[in-house]
Amino acid sequence: MATAGKVIKCKAAVAWEAGKPLSMEEVEVAPPQAMEVRVKILFTALCRSDVYFWEAKGQTPVFPRIFGHEAGGIVESVGEGVTEVAPGDHVLPVFTGECKECLHCKSAESNMCDLLRINTDRGVMISDGKSRFSIDGKPIYHFVGTSTFSEYTVLHVGCVVKINPEAPLDKVCVLSCGVSTGLGASINVAKPPKGSTVAIFGLGAVGLAAAEGARIAGASRIIGIDLNTNRFEEARKFGCTEFVNPKDHSKPIQEVLVEMTNGGVDRSVECSGNINAMIQAFECVHDGWGVAVLVGVPHKNAEFKTHPMNFLNERTLKGTFFGNFKPRTDLPNVVEMYMKKELEVEKFITHSVPFSEINKAFDLMAKGEGIRCIIRMEN
Amino acid sequence: MATAGKVIKCKAAVAWEAGKPLSMEEVEVAPPQAMEVRVKILFTALCRSDVYFWEAKGQTPVFPRIFGHEAGGIVESVGEGVTEVAPGDHVLPVFTGECKECLHCKSAESNMCDLLRINTDRGVMISDGKSRFSIDGKPIYHFVGTSTFSEYTVLHVGCVVKINPEAPLDKVCVLSCGVSTGLGASINVAKPPKGSTVAIFGLGAVGLAAAEGARIAGASRIIGIDLNTNRFEEARKFGCTEFVNPKDHSKPIQEVLVEMTNGGVDRSVECSGNINAMIQAFECVHDGWGVAVLVGVPHKNAEFKTHPMNFLNERTLKGTFFGNFKPRTDLPNVVEMYMKKELEVEKFITHSVPFSEINKAFDLMAKGEGIRCIIRMEN
Ligand SMILES: NC(=O)c1ccc[n+]([C@@H]2O[C@H](COP(=O)([O-])OP(=O)(O)OC[C@H]3O[C@@H](n4cnc5c(N)ncnc54)[C@H](O)[C@@H]3O)[C@@H](O)[C@H]2O)c1
Ligand SMILES: NC(=O)c1ccc[n+]([C@@H]2O[C@H](COP(=O)([O-])OP(=O)(O)OC[C@H]3O[C@@H](n4cnc5c(N)ncnc54)[C@H](O)[C@@H]3O)[C@@H](O)[C@H]2O)c1
Ligand SMILES: [Zn+2]
Ligand SMILES: [Zn+2]
Ligand SMILES: [Zn+2]
Ligand SMILES: [Zn+2]
Repeated sequence: MATAGKVIKCKAAVAWEAGKPLSMEEVEVAPPQAMEVRVKILFTALCRSDVYFWEAKGQTPVFPRIFGHEAGGIVESVGEGVTEVAPGDHVLPVFTGECKECLHCKSAESNMCDLLRINTDRGVMISDGKSRFSIDGKPIYHFVGTSTFSEYTVLHVGCVVKINPEAPLDKVCVLSCGVSTGLGASINVAKPPKGSTVAIFGLGAVGLAAAEGARIAGASRIIGIDLNTNRFEEARKFGCTEFVNPKDHSKPIQEVLVEMTNGGVDRSVECSGNINAMIQAFECVHDGWGVAVLVGVPHKNAEFKTHPMNFLNERTLKGTFFGNFKPRTDLPNVVEMYMKKELEVEKFITHSVPFSEINKAFDLMAKGEGIRCIIRMEN
Repeated sequence: MATAGKVIKCKAAVAWEAGKPLSMEEVEVAPPQAMEVRVKILFTALCRSDVYFWEAKGQTPVFPRIFGHEAGGIVESVGEGVTEVAPGDHVLPVFTGECKECLHCKSAESNMCDLLRINTDRGVMISDGKSRFSIDGKPIYHFVGTSTFSEYTVLHVGCVVKINPEAPLDKVCVLSCGVSTGLGASINVAKPPKGSTVAIFGLGAVGLAAAEGARIAGASRIIGIDLNTNRFEEARKFGCTEFVNPKDHSKPIQEVLVEMTNGGVDRSVECSGNINAMIQAFECVHDGWGVAVLVGVPHKNAEFKTHPMNFLNERTLKGTFFGNFKPRTDLPNVVEMYMKKELEVEKFITHSVPFSEINKAFDLMAKGEGIRCIIRMEN
């Protein structure tokens, strides 16, 4: 490749300040260092987490910064020591990596890599503590090791997932965060038995993917719970068979669900991040066998509270991160699920804009319209 | 049998009032009704739960009552419709039954039978709401459907476990409550992988059995935690390799354990019933894969509190009742584990008294001496 080993000048959408529209800039992208990969991004999507850290309310502000972490692209060049991917490979960047060496990566159960676990405060590469992006020699910071709102970006090889080159990147790009998170929460963690009843709390992209996962696993009743009734129409397409809006009930919603299901749901998946919904999701599962899975990210000072007898009556509560998928090991199989038409991805994609109009994607999310907006880097 | 169908007069240790020594009385034991079994008790043991309900501090007082639920005996006669056991069968009475018909009994995961689940307030048989025990025509109440502090007792057939007649009843009688509870919490629920590290909170009979279960499962580090250092010497025999007394530390004990184990234990089992120990048992497990199991029965108004991020970092919390054993289906196999010398039962039995001296067993427990005291009905 003509560009390998050289600085690339390209377009990136830079967030100069918290909450201010992104600004299209020409940035310099340094070549990948040892164990790093430079990727040409073709498609990226906007996820709720980009918005949280861009708004930086309560989070550490790290600016100027290039956001973006749901994306698909092609490897442009690789740094020293990289053997698992090569220029031309189709890849998904991921916000949480897999080094394949640490205790977590070696455990069959964990995907919380010690080296490359998500870090939202760090704006630099881990090898040298520096950014690969700059404008006029001044660093522009990375976001969760991905920064996909740029035509080119640099990632640690552990955050680069090589996928089937036949897979359409404009579709499978959404598998690198929210959709896999919800899907995995159901199929890897909640594991609803065939014919079972599942409650999904929060019907955003993550909750809808959890419903899709429950449908794929063979659940026969999928009850969607959201405070926003507008979500219900969409949720039907993802397998939800019934809906409950806590605002329509004066009783605690866990009691409503227990009555609807003759003792409790078999599985529940919490995808709102609201602490009350977490407690409700736990308390609504059936004694004897119910399993509740927490996905939504809570407030810093949230406190989970329940009577311990709820556990002793043989209920299980677990949390999951990225749907318990090990990114490099498991995501290629999620892409194959899509290729085999077991998993429908198109229905998550409700909008699409050219890179130059990226701020429209932020507006759509602010208005709560649609699920995913694809940002096309090339036109 | 000469006694079948007739009232049997025999000796029983009656609790006339909360907290007062039991008194040896001649009681009349009515014949078993439909789906009931009359059992001649040969050996019984005293468990902490007998003492709780005898003291009746905070619990509903039900007196006069015949306590006792850890025992072994021989079927004397059976009521109408009983086909699973016959006179002469060796059996263990259990405080929680298995009807084999309800949703819980039919679920592979639950042992919390809808019909025969433990009920500590009920002092009568479920078929007719009456007691089978009387003195001068006045009812003496049952305890958890077992009332084994009597030479003869009547149980629902769902609470009668038929076991290998070769098994010595003076040993395996202790398998009908605390020992199976702790053992099952480890082998059925916590399931520590070979070579793993397990923390056991509370080293009473249940906790020691949980340690024994962890040892059988192949855990290599078993850390016993108790406020009473006297427990540690005994606990070594049950596989505990290390000890921590929270009183010796100024830091929260979960932090001490996380430091001792480079990130947390793989499994923990809470067997004290103390709410702080429950929270500690959860927070000391490793992120990514740690599983905490609650066994101890908490105070009525206890509240389990933790930060939900502790779940999201892929920790699991579950509770268990009677070690997740289905009594009739699984206990015969626990007896076989003992027969095959996989499980050591003798070490739980530290004392033995004749029936006439049953109050000595209460004194031993009050003093915290030993683990189990066997009460011999015949001499
Ligand atoms: N664990 C992970 O790996 C991971 C990855 C991605 C996202 N997340 C988290 O998942 C959560 C959902 O993400 P999203 O992008 O779908 O968010 P979203 O904001 O699009 O959707 C959340 C939905 O929850 C609903 N809601 C809010 N409070 C509720 C309540 N009390 N009861 C029921 N519904 C309620 C909202 O109306 C909304 O429809 C967020 O907390 C996000 O941070 C976790
Ligand atoms: N879930 C079930 O099916 C089931 C069955 C039987 C017993 N149990 C329960 O199991 C628990 C243990 O029973 P047991 O007979 O072994 O009781 P026990 O009283 O003999 O033993 C409890 C031990 O816990 C220790 N302890 C108390 N507070 C502690 C703390 N904060 N940290 C560490 N250790 C602490 C005590 O010093 C004691 O050694 C009880 O709560 C009992 O009700 C449950
Ligand atoms: Zn790793
Ligand atoms: Zn995301
Ligand atoms: Zn049953
Ligand atoms: Zn007991």
